[in-house]
Amino acid sequence: MKSPISSLQSWLPLNIFLIISTSVLISSTSATTIFDIPRLSPLGGILQDPETVFSANVSDDFETFYYNQTLDHFNYMPESYSTFQQRYVINSKYWGGANRSAPILVYLGAEAPLDSTYLTAIGFLTDNAAEFKALLLYIEHRYYGESIPFGSRTEAFRNASTLGYFNSAQALADYAEIILNLKEQLQAQYSPVIVIGGSYGGMLASWFRLKYPHIAIGALASSAPILYFDDITPQDGFFSVVTKDFREASETCYQTIKDSWSIIDEVATKPDGLSVLSKTFKTCDPLSSSSGLKTNLVWMYARAAQYNHPPNYPVTTICGGIDGAPPETEILDKVFAGVVAYSGNRTCYFNATQNISETIIGWRWQVCSEMVIPIGITNNTMFQPRPFILSNFTEGYCRSIYGVLPRPQWVTTYYGGHDIKLILQRFGSNIIFSNGLKDPFSSGGVLVNISNSIVAIHTVNGSHCLDMHPANQTDPEWLVIQRKAEVNIIKGWISNYYFNLLAAFRQ
Amino acid sequence: MKSPISSLQSWLPLNIFLIISTSVLISSTSATTIFDIPRLSPLGGILQDPETVFSANVSDDFETFYYNQTLDHFNYMPESYSTFQQRYVINSKYWGGANRSAPILVYLGAEAPLDSTYLTAIGFLTDNAAEFKALLLYIEHRYYGESIPFGSRTEAFRNASTLGYFNSAQALADYAEIILNLKEQLQAQYSPVIVIGGSYGGMLASWFRLKYPHIAIGALASSAPILYFDDITPQDGFFSVVTKDFREASETCYQTIKDSWSIIDEVATKPDGLSVLSKTFKTCDPLSSSSGLKTNLVWMYARAAQYNHPPNYPVTTICGGIDGAPPETEILDKVFAGVVAYSGNRTCYFNATQNISETIIGWRWQVCSEMVIPIGITNNTMFQPRPFILSNFTEGYCRSIYGVLPRPQWVTTYYGGHDIKLILQRFGSNIIFSNGLKDPFSSGGVLVNISNSIVAIHTVNGSHCLDMHPANQTDPEWLVIQRKAEVNIIKGWISNYYFNLLAAFRQ
Repeated sequence: MKSPISSLQSWLPLNIFLIISTSVLISSTSATTIFDIPRLSPLGGILQDPETVFSANVSDDFETFYYNQTLDHFNYMPESYSTFQQRYVINSKYWGGANRSAPILVYLGAEAPLDSTYLTAIGFLTDNAAEFKALLLYIEHRYYGESIPFGSRTEAFRNASTLGYFNSAQALADYAEIILNLKEQLQAQYSPVIVIGGSYGGMLASWFRLKYPHIAIGALASSAPILYFDDITPQDGFFSVVTKDFREASETCYQTIKDSWSIIDEVATKPDGLSVLSKTFKTCDPLSSSSGLKTNLVWMYARAAQYNHPPNYPVTTICGGIDGAPPETEILDKVFAGVVAYSGNRTCYFNATQNISETIIGWRWQVCSEMVIPIGITNNTMFQPRPFILSNFTEGYCRSIYGVLPRPQWVTTYYGGHDIKLILQRFGSNIIFSNGLKDPFSSGGVLVNISNSIVAIHTVNGSHCLDMHPANQTDPEWLVIQRKAEVNIIKGWISNYYFNLLAAFRQ
Repeated sequence: MKSPISSLQSWLPLNIFLIISTSVLISSTSATTIFDIPRLSPLGGILQDPETVFSANVSDDFETFYYNQTLDHFNYMPESYSTFQQRYVINSKYWGGANRSAPILVYLGAEAPLDSTYLTAIGFLTDNAAEFKALLLYIEHRYYGESIPFGSRTEAFRNASTLGYFNSAQALADYAEIILNLKEQLQAQYSPVIVIGGSYGGMLASWFRLKYPHIAIGALASSAPILYFDDITPQDGFFSVVTKDFREASETCYQTIKDSWSIIDEVATKPDGLSVLSKTFKTCDPLSSSSGLKTNLVWMYARAAQYNHPPNYPVTTICGGIDGAPPETEILDKVFAGVVAYSGNRTCYFNATQNISETIIGWRWQVCSEMVIPIGITNNTMFQPRPFILSNFTEGYCRSIYGVLPRPQWVTTYYGGHDIKLILQRFGSNIIFSNGLKDPFSSGGVLVNISNSIVAIHTVNGSHCLDMHPANQTDPEWLVIQRKAEVNIIKGWISNYYFNLLAAFRQ
């Protein structure tokens, strides 16, 4: 198998947006091609935010365990019986105990290692543990962090044969086994389980409730774009929301950005144009094409929109930079003022030598196997059109890296998604789909109530997974209300469950 | 891998009931050890019944097709992408068409080849096609009939590495793909699908509705013992019902059978005792132990109870033979009179040289991988105790044949089953669990309503999958009523679906 990096270099200039299209963006300003957002990362904003106050008293009580997990739940060949150590973390400080059938809140790990910084950033669990008298359980997703099959990351990521077991159905079965095993250990068979996740983890939470109703009585799926598969959501949904965010922040800002692309192209075609652009944007490395610069800018706008959370609102910050420049400033200098406003004063910008994180590596496989999220740009946005072309992605990109083709229809085959209201209005219960409408991924989320107990809660000004973040004194009222509503709905599920449980015991 | 036959020979004398315990019985009267019922065969009675009138006019219109099926839906290694030809059969004679969103009734194939005799025996579909204006679709289960991966049965059944893909989760995903593909071909996206199955196929139907609600709007699960896993149903449930059936047919018959076992043992220990038993029961081959004879008798009683259907009621037939012997007849001669009444006059009985069917071979793998149905005999039956001991079954039996261990808790992990009412009373909809209480497998069935639309319909005198059989003029009133009730409930589901569909179109 060719190295992903080297195979991408030759391919990238023509196909940048294939990669955006699957929720990774590529900077091609240097040889160390990187993948970056819009990933489905739930905590992209919060983890870099030094102002966040974590609940230190809760986080002191995390205990780490390992479960001897089955490699392949859906096959019985001898290799399937191989096991690996899967990490999970428990916080039992506030738990009411098995005798009282006190609840268990389970965070379903997503595309990131479950390290301690990450754990404390999932405020929804730590903030509500005491009120629910809940045991907190966090389970790491297979192939991330310490939960690696085949003995090492090198082996596990060697090729499609070792990566083949890395998918959502296997991950859900992992969660099922660990939850059942833990409940047995604790003799807590009747403790109600609520699964909680954000972004990709939010999809997992809603799917877990649908596939394993006997294990979780309900799910909170935060910013879960479960409808961004197949042709359910238009491919320009994501960038339409990015555009809308900027336009709502400032019409002039939106217009400046919209006008900037053709100017960048125009400058680039002039003699020394790339060097002019490199200088205008103070790039850390000299630009070798205008597309590298444009990709970095698209990346920045998308990230600002996805993580456009209070109190700083990065979209407003960028537009503040752009609009704040004197009226006579040239458009590209205005755009650069937006870059500086967003990133702060630096010696140079768009440094391409960032580390390639586990998330980037892992998610690249996931989008090239089943998580084919077709994000493209057609028109009606502030960006230049870049349609998502499925065959280019599957044949041209994924096959060249991994040697196997994605199965773009598998998610809708296994989990559904088409006509979701028609299907679920008479089936299933107890799912909250929460979204912030400023989040570009909300375009693929469930935004209307499906039934009395499969409900949509969204905030007009919310961003990606904002409700999962630790509560903060600076939180706006609408965010406080959203979280409170979620807590109350979950209390209702637990109350109904106890009611039925009592009835069953009395029979 | 050792041959299953040879490895069993040395093992059998001590462990006969391990095999009963997993719904196969073994006759050890000769070297050609065979497996036989109680299997979960839906049509065990009807296919041998020459009186059955099949709907010939419907069966003329079956058309066979093949779908290029994915070998492994839950893995992305290159081998997973291998495909095999999966057989499905369509009858469109009565279909109202895609434009009218007319329904599709889908028979989910179980542990048998889907040949034409079998198709016509599934009366519930053929009898109701016209009334529902339904397309009939029958899908063969992987590893049976013509739906064989790896190019041949020999390859597919070579060892656990090739058999590993042979399990229910893969089978359900096969069904999902074929149904979606067919609906796309027919442009019948909005035609409601009802999945129907009996016995193991009934389990598949109920599980399909739970796992793929976006593909099937409802399920008819006939005689599906979905609770005969783990420790949900007591292990003696099966033989308790066999016993009850005989006792209700005749107290003296029951008592005769109950007394016969120790007499067989007593005779066997005498000099020439086995030869006396061979003569008394006219066995085709000389008995080498009393256990072989006893197993054959247990086999016969169990089969009679499972398929105790009108108009002949085999249990009544056997008891007629036993009770009809003159009062002074010795007990073993009475039992033999029951054998003759059941099997007819033959030159000899308990011929061990029967063919080993595909069902026997296939089901043996299925019980040794995931379908661990712990049937044992503890006490309070008319049989000698033979407890089911899990470790003997998994380690002693399955591992010696296949080299891998079953996963006895997987079914309840993936599909649930524990506290089913507590779980499903607020989740899911549109499942009929039908049972006949004379069927020993009804002991592991759902016999009480779970919610308004997850309902149990049972008949006191019904047998295994009786409601699936073609309607017959001799059918008793209670059977006619049962089938009618099922049809009406399904009509209600379809009506609700159309109501919601219209509302969705008008939005």
